[in-house]
Amino acid sequence: MERFFAKGKKSPYYQEIQAAFLTMEKQFEQTLRTDHRVLSKAATHLLKSGGKRLRPALVLLGGRLGQQSDVHQMPLALAMETVHMATLVHDDVVDSAALRRGKPTVKAKWGNEVSVFTGTFLLARAMSMIASYEDAYLNQRTAEVALEMCCGELDQMNSAFQIDESTDTYKKRIKQKTAYLISACCELGAYISGASREIVAALRYYGEAIGMAFQITDDILDYQLNNMTLGKVIGGDIREGIATLPLIYAAKHSSQRERILSIFSKKQKGEEEVREVIGLVSACGGIRYAEDIAEKHIAEAKKAVEIIEDRELREVYHQIADFILTRNQ
Amino acid sequence: MERFFAKGKKSPYYQEIQAAFLTMEKQFEQTLRTDHRVLSKAATHLLKSGGKRLRPALVLLGGRLGQQSDVHQMPLALAMETVHMATLVHDDVVDSAALRRGKPTVKAKWGNEVSVFTGTFLLARAMSMIASYEDAYLNQRTAEVALEMCCGELDQMNSAFQIDESTDTYKKRIKQKTAYLISACCELGAYISGASREIVAALRYYGEAIGMAFQITDDILDYQLNNMTLGKVIGGDIREGIATLPLIYAAKHSSQRERILSIFSKKQKGEEEVREVIGLVSACGGIRYAEDIAEKHIAEAKKAVEIIEDRELREVYHQIADFILTRNQ
Repeated sequence: MERFFAKGKKSPYYQEIQAAFLTMEKQFEQTLRTDHRVLSKAATHLLKSGGKRLRPALVLLGGRLGQQSDVHQMPLALAMETVHMATLVHDDVVDSAALRRGKPTVKAKWGNEVSVFTGTFLLARAMSMIASYEDAYLNQRTAEVALEMCCGELDQMNSAFQIDESTDTYKKRIKQKTAYLISACCELGAYISGASREIVAALRYYGEAIGMAFQITDDILDYQLNNMTLGKVIGGDIREGIATLPLIYAAKHSSQRERILSIFSKKQKGEEEVREVIGLVSACGGIRYAEDIAEKHIAEAKKAVEIIEDRELREVYHQIADFILTRNQ
Repeated sequence: MERFFAKGKKSPYYQEIQAAFLTMEKQFEQTLRTDHRVLSKAATHLLKSGGKRLRPALVLLGGRLGQQSDVHQMPLALAMETVHMATLVHDDVVDSAALRRGKPTVKAKWGNEVSVFTGTFLLARAMSMIASYEDAYLNQRTAEVALEMCCGELDQMNSAFQIDESTDTYKKRIKQKTAYLISACCELGAYISGASREIVAALRYYGEAIGMAFQITDDILDYQLNNMTLGKVIGGDIREGIATLPLIYAAKHSSQRERILSIFSKKQKGEEEVREVIGLVSACGGIRYAEDIAEKHIAEAKKAVEIIEDRELREVYHQIADFILTRNQ
């Protein structure tokens, strides 16, 4: 949890959210428990692989905007992280990566079959937790978000190896794939806590903006050579033919467009070729451009939460926005 | 729809349910429409592949138990068939079959990736339709059923090539995989129509019983040599190492147990070997045994609906039960 807060600036909210966070981690294992052996193992494996837990943090934080306790927010917090985990498992069926967060993927350990049903199990589990609130809007919104996520994932597959994608198409795709879920965490966390309509709407907007910045930053990380020294694999998107913002920009503005295109369109690329594309994208300002766009989203997000009267709480939302921009993993 | 009714016995319910059924088919395409090209194609492909539409028929029929119109029942009817379709698409990722209902599977046409997200899309779409009722019980029950179905599918994978499975394990698995969804169609169809608690409970039981019989009959069809003359592929379960009721019985009672076991445990089986197993299973009474169990479930189902006062309506439920037992596809 501390990762979301600016160093040295201890918010009065820090301690209580930290406590809620610890409770959540404990409850998570219980939540995903099933008497089905392989499912149970796969779910526990996923849990232990960690993750930032950004989504549940946003739901728990939403409780501060209304009058609700962490106990009330908890099922939604767990459900949202579970939806996220479901998409990770299904993504792995599509991606060829054998590792996620440095650990073997469910697919690598148990195969496509287990991945398909583990992912669906997680989604159904999340829907069941959400149904426990007996709130129509909550059910409707979560089902909608799951639908959008599927469309975003399929769009990404369809647009593989298409370098001349428009920025709008890219934005629509990452909105579906990533931003809507983060937006729903912010919005619904405020909504179930009984926050005002204005606050709920503002949080929905805040969430969408940080969600966009989150995915753009994620895509930028794949282009940062200095990440290699951290032992991280970079250039994965280039290898798989996924055009993200830095590359889309470079395809339009680089004097080396033809060279970039000729490497990018290959199904198999050498390590040197991938590095060359990264160098060319960086040289023409593609990474800087993507960073600018991410910064704009973050600025919009911060503006959206001006409506929050509690200065300290507003500050927490600002710090999370800053964290998203500056994170290096 | 006429397939569910006994020939020659025209129920006064026949015409109205038939009309509702036609409306449903028309609405189905609209329901699954999305501006996502591949998703839309995959969903339409599935729709055109047909199917018995047993699940929505049961939901629509449930409307007759309360005071609700077909318009009210329709979203649930469509949602339940959509859940069923989601599992078919995900099953295809697991199965190696290239055809389903004589048409190429989504997997065969578009690959694993599209199958995973099409299946999840369908599930999310169903949950969204169900959420439109703004009824907590409905959301909860459907999510639970989806969870059980995932467990059943994974169990089937885990127990592959295990011939000495107990009948109880088999029953639990088919309950999860098949019977719970059919049960939910019967129960929830009655529930949303405003039927009494007793009727709703009876329908849940009826649905579970016909669901069990449905799967057992399905498993028996895979052992019926006379189906081969219809151009159907039989012995698929034997080839994939799935032990169903006829085989589980034979493994316990056949004098040729060792021979059955030695063929069944092979990963690759010749056509002659598969036929030999079918012959041995049939010879020791395995098929007859499974038929008996299916018949018992059907008898229980019929008993459960004795509570329905309208004789003609009760008769429709009886005819559907009979259809399940006697169907040959």
